[in-house]
Amino acid sequence: MSAISAELVNKLRQKTNAGMMDCKKALTETKGDFEAAEIFLRKKGITKAEGKADRATKEGVISSYIHLAGRVGVLIEVNCETDFVAKNENFQSLVKDLCLHIAAASPRFVQRDEVPADIIAKEREIGAGQVTGKPANVIEKIVEGKLNKFYADHCLMEQPFIKNPDITITDVVKGKIAELGENLVVRRFTRYAVGGE
Amino acid sequence: MSAISAELVNKLRQKTNAGMMDCKKALTETKGDFEAAEIFLRKKGITKAEGKADRATKEGVISSYIHLAGRVGVLIEVNCETDFVAKNENFQSLVKDLCLHIAAASPRFVQRDEVPADIIAKEREIGAGQVTGKPANVIEKIVEGKLNKFYADHCLMEQPFIKNPDITITDVVKGKIAELGENLVVRRFTRYAVGGE
Repeated sequence: MSAISAELVNKLRQKTNAGMMDCKKALTETKGDFEAAEIFLRKKGITKAEGKADRATKEGVISSYIHLAGRVGVLIEVNCETDFVAKNENFQSLVKDLCLHIAAASPRFVQRDEVPADIIAKEREIGAGQVTGKPANVIEKIVEGKLNKFYADHCLMEQPFIKNPDITITDVVKGKIAELGENLVVRRFTRYAVGGE
Repeated sequence: MSAISAELVNKLRQKTNAGMMDCKKALTETKGDFEAAEIFLRKKGITKAEGKADRATKEGVISSYIHLAGRVGVLIEVNCETDFVAKNENFQSLVKDLCLHIAAASPRFVQRDEVPADIIAKEREIGAGQVTGKPANVIEKIVEGKLNKFYADHCLMEQPFIKNPDITITDVVKGKIAELGENLVVRRFTRYAVGGE
């Protein structure tokens, strides 16, 4: 293990709001690479962010983004705990990033538990139809894998962030939860394209 | 009948694209009041606009409006026939007016045929429950009246326009169809309020 300076640990704590031991461990694992350590913490879901996931989010903001001179548009609601955070620039930059992401990546759902049962059944059927001559338990595992791929493609929270494909939107939101010290929830979004679905 | 000048009839034709006889009749009915005649034509659905109602609308624009610093937001798709009209200022001012109207008037549907059957059934039940001791055919008429009121309250196209409650949104759109010479369709909209339904 390489030696990690207390200064670097403190800097990471301030940036992420994670605990000292978590920050030290992240920097050790990533050999002192600050940005990699931050991603490491986000991927692990950072203690501070995790602890806030059940807190009520009744405030928030509605925002929109119009792309390509009106060919594509996005409307989003992101909730937080207080009006103070709703007006915070850091929070609003998250909302803006989410709008840009949705315009570019065209997710269909916020998260996997919103995917209707008939769509899941159809995906399962298609997945199973692509596999032949294997035992049932193997087919089931392959189908589960294909379904997870479907969620990663179509659910906002599981998509790789367009500005940094190493992390998912869940990681981005958890990072902001840690930074802002409040639970944040992407409640809903709508994406229209002219003549589209 | 008062005498209507040919000049005034021509002016109304240019403004509305309606036929000469329609314009003359509208001005006669409204005793030469130009603005009232225009509203009269819009209420009657203006011949020129009516003839375009079946034409395909594959172009258009997505627009949005954020109200009260992010407490309310609207996303809308309005379709037209050509990219030329989609970029037209007069068309875009219609789209902007519709956004403002939706933010203020909170419609739930574009038009009555989009209201789900279960909501109609519930409204019928509530309406019938408010009437007692009348023959069935009278109750049916009262319930129909209440249902029409429900449509006028909740369907965008039947709502009175917030900027001019004498005309409905249907009248506003038909007026623009006449002015622009293309079929226009409000295809869909979404309205979010923080923490709202």
